[in-house]
Amino acid sequence: MSDQPNQVDAIVIGAGSGGLTVAVGLSQFGKSVVMIEKADVGGDCTNVGCIPSKSLLHHSAHQEGRPGAEILAKVRERRDYLRDHETEEFGAKEGIDLQFGTARLVSPQRVSVTRPDGVVDVYEAKNVIVATGSHARRLPIEGLPADRYLTNEELFEQKTVPQKLVIVGAGPIGIEMATAFRRLGTNVVVLDAAPRILPLYLPEASAVVQRSLEAAGVDVRAGVVAKSFDGSTNTLHVGPLDGLAADKIDDVDRVLMAVGRVPNSADIGLEEIGIEMDRGRIVIDAKGKTSVDGVWACGDVTTEGATTHAANAWGRRIIKHILAPVAPAGERPLHPAVTFSDPEAATIGDQPEVVPTDVRRIVVDYSSADRSFTDEVIDGVIIVDVRRFRGTVLGATIVGPRSGELISVFSLAMKNDIRFNKWYGTVWPYPSYADALGKAVDVYMGEALPNIHKEFAAWAGGKIKRLIK
Amino acid sequence: MSDQPNQVDAIVIGAGSGGLTVAVGLSQFGKSVVMIEKADVGGDCTNVGCIPSKSLLHHSAHQEGRPGAEILAKVRERRDYLRDHETEEFGAKEGIDLQFGTARLVSPQRVSVTRPDGVVDVYEAKNVIVATGSHARRLPIEGLPADRYLTNEELFEQKTVPQKLVIVGAGPIGIEMATAFRRLGTNVVVLDAAPRILPLYLPEASAVVQRSLEAAGVDVRAGVVAKSFDGSTNTLHVGPLDGLAADKIDDVDRVLMAVGRVPNSADIGLEEIGIEMDRGRIVIDAKGKTSVDGVWACGDVTTEGATTHAANAWGRRIIKHILAPVAPAGERPLHPAVTFSDPEAATIGDQPEVVPTDVRRIVVDYSSADRSFTDEVIDGVIIVDVRRFRGTVLGATIVGPRSGELISVFSLAMKNDIRFNKWYGTVWPYPSYADALGKAVDVYMGEALPNIHKEFAAWAGGKIKRLIK
Repeated sequence: MSDQPNQVDAIVIGAGSGGLTVAVGLSQFGKSVVMIEKADVGGDCTNVGCIPSKSLLHHSAHQEGRPGAEILAKVRERRDYLRDHETEEFGAKEGIDLQFGTARLVSPQRVSVTRPDGVVDVYEAKNVIVATGSHARRLPIEGLPADRYLTNEELFEQKTVPQKLVIVGAGPIGIEMATAFRRLGTNVVVLDAAPRILPLYLPEASAVVQRSLEAAGVDVRAGVVAKSFDGSTNTLHVGPLDGLAADKIDDVDRVLMAVGRVPNSADIGLEEIGIEMDRGRIVIDAKGKTSVDGVWACGDVTTEGATTHAANAWGRRIIKHILAPVAPAGERPLHPAVTFSDPEAATIGDQPEVVPTDVRRIVVDYSSADRSFTDEVIDGVIIVDVRRFRGTVLGATIVGPRSGELISVFSLAMKNDIRFNKWYGTVWPYPSYADALGKAVDVYMGEALPNIHKEFAAWAGGKIKRLIK
Repeated sequence: MSDQPNQVDAIVIGAGSGGLTVAVGLSQFGKSVVMIEKADVGGDCTNVGCIPSKSLLHHSAHQEGRPGAEILAKVRERRDYLRDHETEEFGAKEGIDLQFGTARLVSPQRVSVTRPDGVVDVYEAKNVIVATGSHARRLPIEGLPADRYLTNEELFEQKTVPQKLVIVGAGPIGIEMATAFRRLGTNVVVLDAAPRILPLYLPEASAVVQRSLEAAGVDVRAGVVAKSFDGSTNTLHVGPLDGLAADKIDDVDRVLMAVGRVPNSADIGLEEIGIEMDRGRIVIDAKGKTSVDGVWACGDVTTEGATTHAANAWGRRIIKHILAPVAPAGERPLHPAVTFSDPEAATIGDQPEVVPTDVRRIVVDYSSADRSFTDEVIDGVIIVDVRRFRGTVLGATIVGPRSGELISVFSLAMKNDIRFNKWYGTVWPYPSYADALGKAVDVYMGEALPNIHKEFAAWAGGKIKRLIK
């Protein structure tokens, strides 16, 4: 270790979605940044997350006669191309010093980096940003050999398409991979301890995706977990969380564990310098700051969202507040979430299963849009929660083709508090799926004006002009 | 003709998109409506427009081994199903008396209906709504036999897929049908008198669609028109509008004429009762009223838009103002327009080719979204026009996959005057195409803050707080 630490303006730990955002942003404003990465530039998103998974979803839906192994190879080729591109781009960026090694917070302003060759360097900066991400939670399955046990880190390295794949966990990752591998011809079984798939979505939304998966031939088993594996027959024994293995799945080729994420917060010195944590995740305030001055955090390692867009949004906040320390933080960003199943399931805001009394929940059949008629879409749903009287949009869930784009209407509207009555009069292009959104607005307005005759005088006088325009 | 006219609250002429909207809306508010249709319920949209064209686009993109003739039959089957469903639904609706026959305005309050059997009835109502639609403009081509000459009215009746199809007119209909028939294996040639396809779009937008069509094997010829046809060799002679036939197209199987629409305004008594017209189209005010009290109009027959969503939006206005005569009209609705090409091209608002000095035009590569990387999209564009300083969004064009949905973010935002700086901080789901919208916002904000260092004091003090949030 050299005696004098290297002085920079900011130290970014982790070159994934969050870290890259902060490093690039700060360097553009003239700050000197050292960015430390333990493995691959781009983090989980580029290497074992969004990019290979969406690439696989795309190529599995457009196979054009290619065998599955070729598609898996194509996905790796694309992923590697992007990683190499990002490594080169960010490694060469003016103001960013990209260093490979394992970082550790020695003090709030000092970070040690242990390089692959064992050499240790120390950096010092007024601002340290922790963006170390997360990794897959690995629940043990008794008897399952390591080469049959996959997480998102091993999945895309498969050289052949599994004959039979059991996916443990029916969250977004599990459901997306069930969709893709089923398209490649794999016999897919999805398990979840919860009573339904996509448990963070509303039940109506989960149901649409489950019907679609089952129609495609996926075996969905809710309320069960993997208990043990018998290697002599390749049988996975399954059963309820608090019960015996009452059922079994034969001829299992691979098991994909997709039961959530573990923040990469251990052994990097967080506790030692007194950073407040919540079940392994770093607690941050509305500016992206940890409980220790000068130490910031964003992305999966924090309590605020575990997606690339959340990491990016919080990374932007950190840039702003490092550059302008006394600027107000404003409200916490509102993150949409999309599961790229078939059809896509998108959601934003707060939608409790039990509707509060002061909330009107509007449910519209997505397939009621004429575009669904022309495109042979027979299932799907839009669920919008609106504060009664006031019209504030509290949350929305859309399950249907392209809902991953349509949810952005809500992202913008909710950020700017466009109340649902103000949506009325918007012209949605025909025949687009947005038409179904228009129907949701109509339902709301139809109820807001229960007795049009009674209201005429008021309307003409402008009293309810705000409602119909 | 009976002596006493039948008294109703409203007479709707035409059971297409506009007429159906008004008839259903008024009947829901307790009004008695007679709706008169000359041909098929659903109008052009259901029978020879949006529905069969989008159904054909869908099935041609998902052929699953079916021959083209089977796909054309499937499109008719779907179209007929919807027409029968609409005929039954609206014929049975309480408060709507659906009558087949040819309508004519005898006076502003009286409409005669000549039925197929020659019997004439007269209806009288305080409100008459003209929603007679439009039909394809039929430019003559010397020598072309009638059975080779198609418009949208004959196109979907084809029992076989043409070997070689010349499409005259590169507007939305021509371009969509070029897309669909090329997918079915047809050799497609598209002609337009204008120097480029989709001339109502910005040149950058037209160029994306043209590149895509050409990559798919469509022969695009701009700046030429069809001159004459030689039936002995099935040769179509083409050339510039004001020049000789300098070129030819051999082995032409069918010609699709798609050079615009002619309003159905002749022979229905409009001029006789003094209704103001503009080149055959009915002039309406912001309430949807014609120059004659009690007579309203919407849809293709008017000067306000020639799409189903425009007809619907204006139909809703008419309902409102019939029910509440003194209610203010508000601003004219803002209509998006989508061409369902591959990729889709969507636009809204006003975007002149030459950018006015007080407008900032932001151009972003659609394929810069990471979703484009995973989905192998290499072309596309987003063009946003923003009023300088004020930030008002004046118009937008998006060409890329799913842009027909993404344009709705602009529809809602522009209706509610969400200035472009207020878009900043919206979180777009990753990896969605909406991400490219976020880049457009970033470009705008990057320019709005040209010298961040200089601005820090002001920012911290709140002066430009409205810009970054």
